[in-house]
Amino acid sequence: MAIITLTTDFGEKDHFAGAIKGAIYTELPQIRIVDISHSISPFNISEAAYIIQNAYRSFPKGTIHVIGVDSELNQENKHIGVKLDDHYFICANNGIMSMICTEIAPEKIVEINIHDKIQTSFPVLDVFAKVACHIARGGTLEVIGKTITEIKPIKNVVPYVNEDKTQIIGSVIYIDNYGNVVTNIKKSFFETIQKGRNFEISARSYKFKTIYKKYSDFVNFEIPEDKRHDEGRGLVVFNSGNFLEIAVYKSNSATVGSASTLMGLNLMDTVTINFFKE
Amino acid sequence: MAIITLTTDFGEKDHFAGAIKGAIYTELPQIRIVDISHSISPFNISEAAYIIQNAYRSFPKGTIHVIGVDSELNQENKHIGVKLDDHYFICANNGIMSMICTEIAPEKIVEINIHDKIQTSFPVLDVFAKVACHIARGGTLEVIGKTITEIKPIKNVVPYVNEDKTQIIGSVIYIDNYGNVVTNIKKSFFETIQKGRNFEISARSYKFKTIYKKYSDFVNFEIPEDKRHDEGRGLVVFNSGNFLEIAVYKSNSATVGSASTLMGLNLMDTVTINFFKE
Amino acid sequence: MAIITLTTDFGEKDHFAGAIKGAIYTELPQIRIVDISHSISPFNISEAAYIIQNAYRSFPKGTIHVIGVDSELNQENKHIGVKLDDHYFICANNGIMSMICTEIAPEKIVEINIHDKIQTSFPVLDVFAKVACHIARGGTLEVIGKTITEIKPIKNVVPYVNEDKTQIIGSVIYIDNYGNVVTNIKKSFFETIQKGRNFEISARSYKFKTIYKKYSDFVNFEIPEDKRHDEGRGLVVFNSGNFLEIAVYKSNSATVGSASTLMGLNLMDTVTINFFKE
Repeated sequence: MAIITLTTDFGEKDHFAGAIKGAIYTELPQIRIVDISHSISPFNISEAAYIIQNAYRSFPKGTIHVIGVDSELNQENKHIGVKLDDHYFICANNGIMSMICTEIAPEKIVEINIHDKIQTSFPVLDVFAKVACHIARGGTLEVIGKTITEIKPIKNVVPYVNEDKTQIIGSVIYIDNYGNVVTNIKKSFFETIQKGRNFEISARSYKFKTIYKKYSDFVNFEIPEDKRHDEGRGLVVFNSGNFLEIAVYKSNSATVGSASTLMGLNLMDTVTINFFKE
Repeated sequence: MAIITLTTDFGEKDHFAGAIKGAIYTELPQIRIVDISHSISPFNISEAAYIIQNAYRSFPKGTIHVIGVDSELNQENKHIGVKLDDHYFICANNGIMSMICTEIAPEKIVEINIHDKIQTSFPVLDVFAKVACHIARGGTLEVIGKTITEIKPIKNVVPYVNEDKTQIIGSVIYIDNYGNVVTNIKKSFFETIQKGRNFEISARSYKFKTIYKKYSDFVNFEIPEDKRHDEGRGLVVFNSGNFLEIAVYKSNSATVGSASTLMGLNLMDTVTINFFKE
Repeated sequence: MAIITLTTDFGEKDHFAGAIKGAIYTELPQIRIVDISHSISPFNISEAAYIIQNAYRSFPKGTIHVIGVDSELNQENKHIGVKLDDHYFICANNGIMSMICTEIAPEKIVEINIHDKIQTSFPVLDVFAKVACHIARGGTLEVIGKTITEIKPIKNVVPYVNEDKTQIIGSVIYIDNYGNVVTNIKKSFFETIQKGRNFEISARSYKFKTIYKKYSDFVNFEIPEDKRHDEGRGLVVFNSGNFLEIAVYKSNSATVGSASTLMGLNLMDTVTINFFKE
């Protein structure tokens, strides 16, 4: 039996996520449901796109991912089902899928058209859960929608590169639980442009010339532990999702501070990389 | 095997919810446990009542709902088990069940009396989990308690209507994750009083003359998207639980604002509906 | 099939916890995964130690507890597997296990040494989840690590007692969801020193001479409910984990206040108990 995952902006308090699980278990008592996140910022498409892109790959092929962010049906916001990389995604056609789709071409996209049978003010419960159960039972996307070929794009998915390829201008797409600042610059993209050249990363007035493989590579372990002052200092890594990330060593927004709080970096802010001649 | 749901004010950080799951799985390795919410405001009976009323219906008949809010046993706060609408509810007799019970008569209420065998400072773990497992194994309420006929009521469950039925005075019972303001005025109740008349809804200095079926019905899609200014504007809907709700289109308390933050509406505030002559 | 629990500082928003579940279910589709907490304060070893100590006991023997707090591998922060009280714990050797190990001697400790096969910037996913699955399939700790005999201690696990045993100086190790202030003074430790003597507990300028068995023992039920003023008043209990806790009756940090907010008590603050001559 397949797994159904949930990624929503319902928050931790409201009953919505619980109700959806109840509805799915009523149809399929043996299914497994996994919460990916219910704490996407309300209506924040970029955050949802980032979270689902990083999470889905760890699940088995055939997993069905329900994404409940800005999902109210209207003439500008249709519901879609997407098959991609042998996973299924059910969400609104509002850009959430465009970050994944720029990397991996979808095998199939359908615009869901079962709404004439359903009166609802809670589409994730009444439409998405139904579609997810249909697929979990082995049903096809074609049965619940009509094939389309394009999905709605979102902005800021791909960073800008200047003509002579001496500069990448990226932007902040996510702030994580540690206050680390994630940009839209992926490792493979960076390396294609870099071609081995030295570089300087700028974010506000902060400059970095090294990208670490992991956070503690930043630490000089030859200095005795009580003489180091690494906690709270800034560094740059490619994170576990291979995105360029401005971090603070052992950060905590509530105590020592974080990259976001200490450097004043927020969603949509610009991060620039300048490459030097060899 | 039945489902056991959990609705508590334990929060997301503490070990309490995890410990309860451990205790239940120890007794019943095959059971399914579903979190409805652990983020009820501490000791907030009305929030818990609202959440469980909206969530329980999506679960299959026979589901057992454990509600851990203000559950310490004392002479004024007994533990009860309730069978209603073919669902089971285990909680303190502190008003949580009175919102559901005003709509659907309980089939059976017992005051739990297994405490003489249990020394506990954590009743949801030591009493409620045990009772839930007993019911999940097919046990009856009568075995773990003595039948009672009345439960403790809570205030503000039903809105006030004036004598000539020209006015409903309701109150705010819940603020959801989007900052939307939920009142205790249900659609069926509203329609019974309205009898087709025009009306005006007042909350503080804000006035509304329309109740939408869904949030985006408020949007005029004939205006081009970049010329509309709908985000952050107030509207009234009957929400997915059929409660009258004052909302803000695509609200986010942290960015564009929400009904609660923009209109200054909080729990217990008054919402008035005046009906006009035909 | 065993249970795997997760205790991390990943927060509720990020994709990390979801990704780990995906990885575990990919290896072991029938396993049960239980979240204990993902809201440990970032890099907070003491909080993690307190949470896991209180939660693990409710789970069946053989349960595997993955603790993802400060888990990046480096020369000062190795990964360990511990068998203790017939439970398994997988974490970094950073002090998290020292609170449990001061009470119960571990049966087996290994330093995990499977890293040469694994390139990772996300060790909880790539190492801990793998080890957990190995144990869940019946594998032994010896296969994935080499036996060690000591683990890294943390400070503040045990309170200080003066030479003539008239004073205990403890400290605050946890603030719970209700703002209750938990100290490192356990009931058994307290009673060993107390030997029946009267005492006074001091925290900042607040003094207490009674330790209650449960919160509502503090209430005088002979006074009519509307004449009592118990909500928001301070008291001391041994909590459900048997730790001495300074609480506020029906506290809520956001409304009536809590022990932490009203008394200004924070993590690491001192709590003193003076014993009087008989």
